[in-house]
Amino acid sequence: MNLKIVVYLISILILLEGLAVASCAGVALMMGDAPHEILLMLCCAVITSLSGALGVILLRPGSKNIQTGVREGFAIVAGGWLAVSLFGSLPFITITGMQVHDAFFETVSGFTTTGASVIDSALKLRDGSTLPEGIESLSYGILFWRSLTHWIGGMGIVVLSLAILPMLGVGGQALFNAEVPGVKTNDDQLTPRIASTAKILFLVYFVLTLLETILLWIGGMHLFDAVCHSFSTIATGGFSTKNNSIAYYNSSYIQVVITIFMFLSGCNFILHYRALRGLPLKQYLSEEYRFFTGILIVVTLVIAATLFFSHVKDPISGDQYHMSPWLCLRAAAFQVVALSTTTGFTTADYTLWPGACGMLLLGLIFMGACGGSTAGGMKCVRLLLFLKYSFSELRRCIFPRSLQDIRLDGKRMDTAVLNKAFGFLAIYMLTVFLFATLLPAVCEMDMVTAISASATCFSNVGPGFGQLAPVYTFSWMNPAAKLLLALEMLVGRLELYTILIIFLPSFWKK
Amino acid sequence: MNLKIVVYLISILILLEGLAVASCAGVALMMGDAPHEILLMLCCAVITSLSGALGVILLRPGSKNIQTGVREGFAIVAGGWLAVSLFGSLPFITITGMQVHDAFFETVSGFTTTGASVIDSALKLRDGSTLPEGIESLSYGILFWRSLTHWIGGMGIVVLSLAILPMLGVGGQALFNAEVPGVKTNDDQLTPRIASTAKILFLVYFVLTLLETILLWIGGMHLFDAVCHSFSTIATGGFSTKNNSIAYYNSSYIQVVITIFMFLSGCNFILHYRALRGLPLKQYLSEEYRFFTGILIVVTLVIAATLFFSHVKDPISGDQYHMSPWLCLRAAAFQVVALSTTTGFTTADYTLWPGACGMLLLGLIFMGACGGSTAGGMKCVRLLLFLKYSFSELRRCIFPRSLQDIRLDGKRMDTAVLNKAFGFLAIYMLTVFLFATLLPAVCEMDMVTAISASATCFSNVGPGFGQLAPVYTFSWMNPAAKLLLALEMLVGRLELYTILIIFLPSFWKK
Repeated sequence: MNLKIVVYLISILILLEGLAVASCAGVALMMGDAPHEILLMLCCAVITSLSGALGVILLRPGSKNIQTGVREGFAIVAGGWLAVSLFGSLPFITITGMQVHDAFFETVSGFTTTGASVIDSALKLRDGSTLPEGIESLSYGILFWRSLTHWIGGMGIVVLSLAILPMLGVGGQALFNAEVPGVKTNDDQLTPRIASTAKILFLVYFVLTLLETILLWIGGMHLFDAVCHSFSTIATGGFSTKNNSIAYYNSSYIQVVITIFMFLSGCNFILHYRALRGLPLKQYLSEEYRFFTGILIVVTLVIAATLFFSHVKDPISGDQYHMSPWLCLRAAAFQVVALSTTTGFTTADYTLWPGACGMLLLGLIFMGACGGSTAGGMKCVRLLLFLKYSFSELRRCIFPRSLQDIRLDGKRMDTAVLNKAFGFLAIYMLTVFLFATLLPAVCEMDMVTAISASATCFSNVGPGFGQLAPVYTFSWMNPAAKLLLALEMLVGRLELYTILIIFLPSFWKK
Repeated sequence: MNLKIVVYLISILILLEGLAVASCAGVALMMGDAPHEILLMLCCAVITSLSGALGVILLRPGSKNIQTGVREGFAIVAGGWLAVSLFGSLPFITITGMQVHDAFFETVSGFTTTGASVIDSALKLRDGSTLPEGIESLSYGILFWRSLTHWIGGMGIVVLSLAILPMLGVGGQALFNAEVPGVKTNDDQLTPRIASTAKILFLVYFVLTLLETILLWIGGMHLFDAVCHSFSTIATGGFSTKNNSIAYYNSSYIQVVITIFMFLSGCNFILHYRALRGLPLKQYLSEEYRFFTGILIVVTLVIAATLFFSHVKDPISGDQYHMSPWLCLRAAAFQVVALSTTTGFTTADYTLWPGACGMLLLGLIFMGACGGSTAGGMKCVRLLLFLKYSFSELRRCIFPRSLQDIRLDGKRMDTAVLNKAFGFLAIYMLTVFLFATLLPAVCEMDMVTAISASATCFSNVGPGFGQLAPVYTFSWMNPAAKLLLALEMLVGRLELYTILIIFLPSFWKK
C-alpha cells in the first residue's frame, strides 16, 4: 500500500478542516463570544491547518505517483474520517474543557451525522466542573462548529468522495461504493463526468440548507439557530443548539418545516438532481422513494392513532395527546421522520408512547431512509429488494420451475446484487448485536439501552430507548463505552466494509 | 388443491394422536391418578381417535388418487400441526379445567417443542380457581401428555415427514425441505430409500431417549420424571414436571447428563445416523458441528468467568457463583446449551447475570443449533455460510476479480443456496421484529419482554427476558397475545415458508 499518498490526501482534508474551524472563529467574533474563546478557536484553526499544510508540503507526490488503487481508496476514507474527527475534537477540548474521549465522541458523532451527544448538565469536564445549562452553556463558536461537523460530514457522504478524491485519481467507482450508501442499482447514478455531478449534488445540498434556514428564520427562529438547525437537518445529523432539541420552540410551523426538510434529506440525492435537471416526475418517484414514503405514512398514522387513544402527557413539551388529533399527528410525523431519516431531532419523549409505538420507532432506526442520501441505517432499497425476494421465494414453493426475476424500477436485479444486499442486512443486524453485547460488558446498562445504543449509533440516528431516551444523553457512559460507540458510528457511516476491510491481513500485504 | 386427500392424511395423524392420548390414560392408571381423571383422559382419546377414524373412513381415496403435489404437501404439514394441536388441547381443557386459549397455547408449545408454559400458581382456570402448586398440581396423566407432545413433535420434525408421508406418496423432497430444518447442503442427507433412513432416525431418537431416561433414573430421579424430562430433552422442548425446572433437583449429575443430551439433540441427526452406520469420525464432525461446538465452548467460558467475578446469588437455586468455579461452569454450560439447542430448561435465573451474559444468551436464542435436529432457531449452518460469505466479500473489496467459492464441508455452495440462506436470516429477524411489534399493541409489556417473547417463541426455546425470566411463565398475558405467540411458534417450527405460503393467493388457485 502507498501510505505516502494516503497521508498526503488526508492532509488535504485536514487543511480544509482548519479553514472550517477558522470560519467558526469568525462566527464567534460576530456573535460576541468571549475574546479568549475566539482566540482559542483561532489557535485550533491554525494548529489544524498547519498540520494539514505540513503533510501536503512534505508528502507532495510527483505527478506520476498520483495514481492510487483500491486499497489506498479505502485507507483514505477510513483514515480521513478518523483524522478529521481527531483534529475536530480540539475546540471541544480547549474551549469547552471537555475530556478527550468525550470530545472525540462528540466530534465523531458530528462528522458521522449521528447527533448522539454527551453534553448535558451532568457531564464532568476536565477540571471536575460541569456545564450547568447543558448545551445552552456552550459558546456560539462551539455550537457552530458542532453543527458544522454535521454539515461537513453529510457533504462528505454525498459530495466529497465524488468531487475531490476522484479528481485526485483515487479509484472513483470503488470509493463511491465504499462511501455513498445504497445498493448500486442504476448506472446513471453517476454521469460520466463525476466532478460535474458532484457539483450539482453540492448545489442541491447548499440550496436545501439555504431554503430551510430562511424558512426557519421566517418562523421566528434566531438566524444563528436557524443556520445550525439547517446544517443538522440536511446532514440528517441531529445536534441542536437547545437542550430540549426542537421541543424548545413549541411551534407547529417550525416542526412542520423541519419535518419536510428531514424527509427531503432522507431521499436519494440523485432524485433531487434529476428533478433539477427537469426529468419527468415518474422517474423522480423511484420505487424506493414510494416504498419509503408509504412506510412513513402508515407508521405515522398508526402512532398518531395510538397516541390519540392514550393518556400520555409528554414530560418535555407538556402536550396531552388525547386533547387534539393535530398534536398527535404532528408529534408522530416529526418523530417518525426524524428517526427514519436518522436525523434524531426530538420534540417528545417517544419512549413513553404506548403499545406498538416503541417497537415501530426502533424498527425505523434500523431501517434508515433511502440510499444515496445523508441518512444511515440499512436503507429502504435493501429492505424493498428483500421483500420482493421473499415474496418470489414463497411463490417458487408452489411453482418450483417458474423463473421469477426480481426487478427494481423495471431493471432486473442480478443474483450477486441480491446476495450483497441480503448479506448486508444480515451483517448489519449481527454488528448491532455484537456491539450490544460488548457494551454491557464494559459499562453497566440494561438490555433495551444496550440494543438501542448500538442500533442508534450504527444507524447514525442519535437518541435511543431506556437510559438513552430523549431526556437523557450519552454522558453517563464510561470512556470505554463511548469509544466503542464512536467506533460503531464510524463503521455504520462507512457502511461496514470500509472499516472492516482494514482488519483483513491481506489488506496490508503487498 | 386436492383438499380431500389433505384432510384424509391429517385424519390419519389425528387417529394416531388418539392412540397417544390413550397411552396417557394407561400411565395415569399406573401412577394412580384419580379415577375420574383417568376416565376423562380416555374420553379425550376416544373422541380424538374417532374423529380421526371418521375422516379416514369417509375420505379414503381410490388407489390412483393417492398422488399429491407440492401444495397438498404444504397444506398437510401446516394443517396437520394445527389440527393435532387443537385435538391435543382436549386433556388440558377437560381434566385440568384450563381455558381454551391457554390449553391451545400449551399444546402448540408442546408440539412445536417450544416449552413455553402458561401453567403457574397464578393461572386462572375456567371456573375462576387456580392451581396452587403450579405445574406440580397437575395429574400424572396430564404431565405425561404434556411431555409426550414434545416427544411427538420432535419426532414429527425428524421422522414423521420422512417416514409416513412420503410412503403415502406426498411429495417427499418438497416436504423434507419444508419440515426438516436446515439448508439442504448434502445429497446424502437422504438415502434413496427414504423410509429406511427414517426408520434409522427413529431408532436414534428412541435410543437417545431411552439412554437418558436410564441415566436420569440412576441419578435418583423418579422414573416418571426421568421419562418426561427425557422426552423434553431429546425433542429440545423444555417442559418440566417441576415448577423450578431442573433447578429442582440441585444435582450436578442430573445437570451434566441433561446438558450432554440437550447437546446431542441439537446436533444434526444425520450425523448420529452416520455414526451408527460406522462412518469415519472425520465425516461425523461436519463444519457446522465444529462451528456449533466452538461457539458453545467460547460463550460458556465467557459467561462462567463473568459469573465467577460477580456477586450474583441465584434466587432459584440459591447458588453464590463467586464461591466456586464449578458452580459457574455448571450453570453457564447448562444455560448456554439449554438456550442454544432451544430446549429452554433452566437451573438459574440467567436474566440476573451481569455484563454481556444477557445479550449472549439472547443471541443464542436467535441462533439455535444445527440443521436437521429437533432444535429451532436460525440454525448454525446458515450463520456459518453467512460468515464465510461476509469474509469473502471483504476480500473481494481488495481483489475485485478474484473468484471466491464458498464451500461447506468441501462442497461448493451455489449462489441460489446462499440467497436462500441469507434471505432466511433476514426474514427471520424481520418476523421476530413484526411479532415483537404486534405483541405490545395487544398486551401491555416492555420492549425487552416483547422482543424476547417473540424470539423465544419463534425459535421454539421457551423462557425469555424481562417478564419472561425463568421465574415467570406466559400466564400473565392476555388471550390475544397468547394466540399470537402460538401462531409464531407454529411459523417458527415449520421454518416460515410452510405457514406463510398459505397466505399467498396463488396457493389457493387451481
